[in-house]
Amino acid sequence: MIKYAILGYGTVGSGVAEVMAEGQEKIAALVGEPVELGYILVRHDYPGDPYADKMTTDFSVIEKDPEVAIVAEVIGGAGDAYAYTKRALRAGKSVVSSNKELVAVHGADLNELARKKGVNYLFEGSVGGGIPLLRPLTQCLAANRIDEVFGILNGTTNYILTAMDAEGRSFADALASAQALGYAEADPTADVEGIDACRKTAILADLSFGYNLDPRKIPTQGITKLESADLELARALGHTVKLLGRARRAEGGCCAFVEPHLVPAEHLLASVSGVMNACVVRGSAVGEVMFYGPGAGKRPTASAVAADIVQAAQHRTHRRDTDLGKPGGVLAPADDLVSRWYVRTGADPAAIERAFPGARPVYGSSGECGFLTEPLDRHELKKRLRPMHPAAVLRVLD
Amino acid sequence: MIKYAILGYGTVGSGVAEVMAEGQEKIAALVGEPVELGYILVRHDYPGDPYADKMTTDFSVIEKDPEVAIVAEVIGGAGDAYAYTKRALRAGKSVVSSNKELVAVHGADLNELARKKGVNYLFEGSVGGGIPLLRPLTQCLAANRIDEVFGILNGTTNYILTAMDAEGRSFADALASAQALGYAEADPTADVEGIDACRKTAILADLSFGYNLDPRKIPTQGITKLESADLELARALGHTVKLLGRARRAEGGCCAFVEPHLVPAEHLLASVSGVMNACVVRGSAVGEVMFYGPGAGKRPTASAVAADIVQAAQHRTHRRDTDLGKPGGVLAPADDLVSRWYVRTGADPAAIERAFPGARPVYGSSGECGFLTEPLDRHELKKRLRPMHPAAVLRVLD
Repeated sequence: MIKYAILGYGTVGSGVAEVMAEGQEKIAALVGEPVELGYILVRHDYPGDPYADKMTTDFSVIEKDPEVAIVAEVIGGAGDAYAYTKRALRAGKSVVSSNKELVAVHGADLNELARKKGVNYLFEGSVGGGIPLLRPLTQCLAANRIDEVFGILNGTTNYILTAMDAEGRSFADALASAQALGYAEADPTADVEGIDACRKTAILADLSFGYNLDPRKIPTQGITKLESADLELARALGHTVKLLGRARRAEGGCCAFVEPHLVPAEHLLASVSGVMNACVVRGSAVGEVMFYGPGAGKRPTASAVAADIVQAAQHRTHRRDTDLGKPGGVLAPADDLVSRWYVRTGADPAAIERAFPGARPVYGSSGECGFLTEPLDRHELKKRLRPMHPAAVLRVLD
Repeated sequence: MIKYAILGYGTVGSGVAEVMAEGQEKIAALVGEPVELGYILVRHDYPGDPYADKMTTDFSVIEKDPEVAIVAEVIGGAGDAYAYTKRALRAGKSVVSSNKELVAVHGADLNELARKKGVNYLFEGSVGGGIPLLRPLTQCLAANRIDEVFGILNGTTNYILTAMDAEGRSFADALASAQALGYAEADPTADVEGIDACRKTAILADLSFGYNLDPRKIPTQGITKLESADLELARALGHTVKLLGRARRAEGGCCAFVEPHLVPAEHLLASVSGVMNACVVRGSAVGEVMFYGPGAGKRPTASAVAADIVQAAQHRTHRRDTDLGKPGGVLAPADDLVSRWYVRTGADPAAIERAFPGARPVYGSSGECGFLTEPLDRHELKKRLRPMHPAAVLRVLD
């Protein structure tokens, strides 16, 4: 019998207890012995809770119990979660986590500590929620040189964009209903400013390109400045607006950024709506593959955390390494990346034609127009846009 | 250093040699030592081929070489491939395979033999080509009860259906261009009659539900009887025609079948076009996830086979089990499964209204009409259709 502990009893923590209990028979068969909940670390009592007898407010109880082989950290943030993860690893316990902030910022160090102690540090749930993504990327595509990885990595912003697109609503209005439905937090900053997507992009880039990136250096633009006019014009141009995290292989590192993009309507990512996520991986042998599913939520995220608990249990004697990359990779400037661009402007057709010969503007209900440029880097784009006072500029996905 | 051998030097075999050579540095880092090509089993010489010095026409050379730890079987079929796989496993070598026929028919026995010998039998490439699918299904969704798995599992038929849909072409005409482009074989029976999709459905069902199904018992209907009128009417009804392999959990087994379906245009599967494949998995914790990518082809399939070689190399001392299910599962009759149905008929509106009150027929260029029924099982459907002489009947995906 193997014991595991859950750190944190919020949405994901309670989901992990639930999913592990439901799957206990199947899991015991896969591991070869039962995997049983030993403790839940909580900040206060939950009288009457079915797991009340498993709860403790003292991490050292878990740390010192030699029967606990696996710790699931679902506290979030890089404070207590960081301290407990280090202590658990030092105590020779495997740690699994859905905490993208911690993995993005300290994951490489924690992984190194796990390697030294001969235990596992696994974090499938940190990117894409319940979508199987990191393990397929690192294992099933093991023989590929990964060239690019990009996708819709945040469900809250995708819900907002879907509502703006389908119902012509403003950003503020769509955000309010996301909050009312529990898809956005009271302080939605980390989601709507792209910070959450940026952390996930950093993790994907690390695993794909072998360099440990500082997520705080990745250029990140959220969706707060989008107007419903942009979604209307994008649609008229045969595109949908999606917030994408992207990372591409570059000499000695990669080019990574988070920006709202115009995605061609015929691309599968354009059909990913509501709170769903999807991630495209381009590999040297496989070509293009995509992984789609719920990127957040209690049971989907718990599904990923539980799978990591199972993996850690299966790999007690033979650790499963997930390499988060060595430090020092170059972060190539996104402004050098050539793309087509979408421009919204009130400029007159003659001015547009002078700067972008052959452009075909479409006109929206606001009277402004939108058009797509030919492929340009951002430096050249800025030069040409100078006389035009554009109201919005967005990158187009190739 | 670990040696591997490739059995067969067709499209996939040469791809495996190529992809393993390209990825050798990364693979050596993942495994902890180099993984090197020892032999290629061929039927005749390839003078001047870069791997000519590795070739042998005698399987016993590979079988007897104790340095060969892993054998990649990419011969196809259940003749020589079956015999060699048994001999390799008995000789204590791990076997990896992209051979869906062999895995579907003899996989459970071969897996049992591998278990007895303490070696790996892995077959990621047998379903979905390069798409990471079987490993995510069995490992990343380990804590889920899988309720249903279904998808577009054959690229040839999807190419034909896409051509029929986009260009209004007949089946025969679209098949001819698939053959000209190398997407369909001279004898396309296994693809167009759904046999290939059926084998893959059997493998998915085995892994999902824990029972070993005989693929020859799975009701299988191909695309040869589809007419361009069906694609035209489906589109007018807001749907796309796709050949789906489906398997659903049922009491003591599952319900599995292969049939052309009408897929709602807003479902992601409707946007999967050309030779691409996609598979949806419904799990008790995760909800719905989808895996998309190239379901066949030299380098994509080689990507999956190479990943299995890497896994087998990583799990020499600690085998990676993939449970193909115990024998004896019930195959629940597909005719009992309630669905909406598409009907094409030349019957007059009054007759349609009598049998299917409230149906809303749409009329195509042929003068026939198509309509969707309410949810019914096939027994009830047949009863109501009796007076109507329908020209085509297809299941609708919920």
